[in-house]
Amino acid sequence: MHFLFVLGCLFIQACAWAVTDPLPSWNEGPIKSGIIQFVKETTTKGEKNYVPPEERIATFDQDGTLWVEQPLYTQFLFAIDRVKILAPEHPEWKDQEPFKSILHTPAGEVPSFKGLPNHNMKNIELILAITHSGMTVDEFHDMICQWLKVTVHPRFKKPFTDLVYQPMLEVLQFFEDNDFKNYIVSGGGQEFMRCYADRVYHVPPERVIGTANKVKYEYRNEQPILLKTPKLLFVDDLKGKPESINLFIGRRPVASFGNSDGDRQMLEWTQAGKGKNFELLVHHDDAVREYAYDNDSKVGTFSASLMEEAKKRGWFVVSMKNDWKVIFPWEKDKRQ
Amino acid sequence: MHFLFVLGCLFIQACAWAVTDPLPSWNEGPIKSGIIQFVKETTTKGEKNYVPPEERIATFDQDGTLWVEQPLYTQFLFAIDRVKILAPEHPEWKDQEPFKSILHTPAGEVPSFKGLPNHNMKNIELILAITHSGMTVDEFHDMICQWLKVTVHPRFKKPFTDLVYQPMLEVLQFFEDNDFKNYIVSGGGQEFMRCYADRVYHVPPERVIGTANKVKYEYRNEQPILLKTPKLLFVDDLKGKPESINLFIGRRPVASFGNSDGDRQMLEWTQAGKGKNFELLVHHDDAVREYAYDNDSKVGTFSASLMEEAKKRGWFVVSMKNDWKVIFPWEKDKRQ
Repeated sequence: MHFLFVLGCLFIQACAWAVTDPLPSWNEGPIKSGIIQFVKETTTKGEKNYVPPEERIATFDQDGTLWVEQPLYTQFLFAIDRVKILAPEHPEWKDQEPFKSILHTPAGEVPSFKGLPNHNMKNIELILAITHSGMTVDEFHDMICQWLKVTVHPRFKKPFTDLVYQPMLEVLQFFEDNDFKNYIVSGGGQEFMRCYADRVYHVPPERVIGTANKVKYEYRNEQPILLKTPKLLFVDDLKGKPESINLFIGRRPVASFGNSDGDRQMLEWTQAGKGKNFELLVHHDDAVREYAYDNDSKVGTFSASLMEEAKKRGWFVVSMKNDWKVIFPWEKDKRQ
Repeated sequence: MHFLFVLGCLFIQACAWAVTDPLPSWNEGPIKSGIIQFVKETTTKGEKNYVPPEERIATFDQDGTLWVEQPLYTQFLFAIDRVKILAPEHPEWKDQEPFKSILHTPAGEVPSFKGLPNHNMKNIELILAITHSGMTVDEFHDMICQWLKVTVHPRFKKPFTDLVYQPMLEVLQFFEDNDFKNYIVSGGGQEFMRCYADRVYHVPPERVIGTANKVKYEYRNEQPILLKTPKLLFVDDLKGKPESINLFIGRRPVASFGNSDGDRQMLEWTQAGKGKNFELLVHHDDAVREYAYDNDSKVGTFSASLMEEAKKRGWFVVSMKNDWKVIFPWEKDKRQ
């Protein structure tokens, strides 16, 4: 490419977009052009929908929106493995639910957490509390890093951090390149996601918002530590999402991305803002390349009423099957 | 100044520092040179204490560190005014403490909140809960803006947002110019501070951490709102400071600034980091230009044991009387 041509493009953003497709893994269509149009309008000075850089806040759900959430949230798979590690210290668990089911499941299989995510919450909270507390924040961080290194997904046989959606990575990058601040706003555990969010999504720890337990400031060998406790501080799901967005960011997002009923309020909150805004839901309808689930799912439910609301409010609904050329980064070569 | 000279300085940061004093309101001495030395060492590539930009986190207490906290925290003065506004709806308050004392105080005088901040916490929490809830986050924001516009400090007769410490504004600016991310980490209310922190300190809402009550996502006329509730989520003071730093930032600060026992753990946590770090306490010893208080203070106690710890750990302790040429921005002309 000619030097002067490149130089010219530096000054004309529209030109840069024409030269490079920011979303090469997306099929052409109203959603792809909707994303590009939104970024163009909100970042071009003089446009009536211009949004100053400091207000360019984009919030992304994680499980099912940025990476695979089936057959069970990754964090729960970690919790299950940790129950097995802790079991020798708790001989009573082998006859006691929910531990019994976990311990009796053959290796490589995923135990059934009946009725996830809306039922049996007590058991789920118990497992998460027990497996995610009692260590310092730093120790937990190392534990997750180590676990992510050695564990693979039961179906794809790849590390979980490889099971991210290539089209969504492109959206994150496109937004970041246009001075948006990308936040993760997830029902998942904040400390858990912070272990890899920077490396995988280029989202730094201070922009990772998730369900959080209390930590406790203490001294160990006269050195201060932060100990993870089993006590829940807040659940970052459903109504909790706009609430925690307010707590952490103190600004309303101008773009929000989700995939389930848990993201409904975040998208509503974003849309109720005064200026131009953007809302998108990922719909899992590709059983061949990933998974197909909606109403009846135990993980990441996409209810009929959510679909209805999306239509009524004009939210974009991605068909993974039709809108995405590839699902995962390692399939990039297959793009046509 | 010659153009080429200026251009040269752009490439040689040290040169820029030599030309412009980043801290003109500070008297020369070990603290001023300590601040400059710290920034130099942590931002010069190749130095053994170099800190990459993303890890340059600096945390600042607000009351007594960035602005005046006597005779009472500004936010409490707002709460007192609001009790008076709400009183007609609560005729029972005129015979009921803590409202009675507030309502019986002559205009212009500050009612005595006996034993602030460590005693009578129940009453203080009650007043804050009642005066800071029942409205949406946006309505509260407007309320604070309006109050700050029309209210002056009882002694200085100036708006509270003018009562910020000029030497500390220079530190904030100096850090920001060197790619530090400045956070406010205060026992004060998060929503309260967010109303002016950007304008006054150039600290955006997402970097304001403070004591927070729960907000509640609801619908009003089919539009989503966030309602402020009286229910406390966490207190951002003492041990709560490193805990909330972890919650919000997920990184350890490399520099922390405070002025009271409430900041002790934040400074300890900062100092326990692996790399180069910086800790500073502002000591109020200037009754002529501002206030002098320490052990016996009801607001912003600086205990003997804190002074002892500061000496033991090598934290800088600012004497406002000796280290600061001027206290407030409007006194800048008086600098010699």
